[in-house]
Parts: sequence; C-alpha cells; structure tokens
Amino acid sequence: MSKVNLDEKLSLFDQPWSPKIVGRLNDYDIQVAKALGEFVWHQHADTDELFLVLNGHLVIQLRDGDIELDPGELFVVPKGAEHRPVSREGADVLLIEPAGVVNTGDAGGEMTVVKERL
Amino acid sequence: MSKVNLDEKLSLFDQPWSPKIVGRLNDYDIQVAKALGEFVWHQHADTDELFLVLNGHLVIQLRDGDIELDPGELFVVPKGAEHRPVSREGADVLLIEPAGVVNTGDAGGEMTVVKERL
Repeated sequence: MSKVNLDEKLSLFDQPWSPKIVGRLNDYDIQVAKALGEFVWHQHADTDELFLVLNGHLVIQLRDGDIELDPGELFVVPKGAEHRPVSREGADVLLIEPAGVVNTGDAGGEMTVVKERL
Repeated sequence: MSKVNLDEKLSLFDQPWSPKIVGRLNDYDIQVAKALGEFVWHQHADTDELFLVLNGHLVIQLRDGDIELDPGELFVVPKGAEHRPVSREGADVLLIEPAGVVNTGDAGGEMTVVKERL
C-alpha cells in the first residue's frame, strides 16, 4: 500500500501509445500513458474507458466530432464508441479501464502492446 | 457525451466532505470532493476506493500509518481498510468507486451524504 506519484511514473518511460499500469482499483487497472501523433481508430465493445489529461493536449476523435482535452479535463469514451486519440504536441494521460482491455480494442495491429507494470 | 473540466465542477460547490458525481465509468461513479478538517474513521467492506489529489494536500490516515498526498498523487484504499481522510489546509480530490458506495462506509452518522450529480 503506497501512493503513486503520476509525474514520477511518467518520467520512467518515453514511448507514446504504451500504457503502463501503476495501480489497481478492484478489477480495474490504473494506467498512465503518453500520447504523441495519431493512434488507431478502434472501439472497446465491452467497456467504457476513462481518459484524464495530466499534461499537454489530447484530442479524442469520435465519429461525430472531436473532444479537446486540456490538463484537468476528463472524458469517458462509451463502450462501443469508435474513437482515435490524437496529440500533435504530446500529452500525458491517466487511463482507467478494466484489467485486460487491449489498447487497440477491436482494431489490433502493430500498435497493440502488452501493458507493463511500473 | 461531453468532457468534464474538474476545476469547473469544483467551483460549483463549497461544502467539504460532500462528494459530487461528475461522470460514470461503467458501474463506477467519478466524483469530485473537497476535504477540509477531519472526516470520520470508516471502511468499505466490498470495494477499493481511489483518491487522486487535484489541489491542496490530503492525508489519508490508516491504522498503520499516514499517506500524504500532494496534487498529482493518488492512493487506492484497499477494501476493508479503515481510513480517515484529513486535510488541515484543504484539498480537492477526484474519487472513483462503484456507484452506491456510502461516503461514511460502515461508520454512518451525521457526515453521511447523498451524492448529488453536478
């Protein structure tokens, strides 16, 4: 039982689009991730997904419009909603979703990663 | 589907120890709360509880020691762990836990509130 300093965890890696697990809330993984450039369009059929921007600026593209997130702003992508995170200048993000959710959802492909625990 | 600006939500109320619901992640409530002074010792038998400090300084007292949280730091109180949040100077907190969890847990009493949705 120890606290998690999010900036400290974010200092431990550089790769964008590679969420790292920093804690657990029941059966949910608490993760930090870096965004830079464009991710892939995908959806998660079985779960919502929480994005909270910690640093930088993140756009969550949805099929019916963009959500623009600055630090201290969060958005919950509803389950089944196609989305693509994009960040031109880079962003640090807190992600919360059930353990085992694949980062690329139904899309798969080369941006799929195994989430490491920091 | 709209984003949530946490500071904006926090500007809408003043009462400490009165969590407000600002979003939903599957069957979890995303809440903001203000801490000032001492809460009551309590525990949640069935769930973990996530505290992320947004502003100020929060102490989560546990029976075996204190967790000191500054902005950008989070702690997950394990289910069944007795805890008491305390903030001498005040703190703003993001709280995430399953919907329906009572703020005072097993303790009940006059600090129990019905969580309003903002």
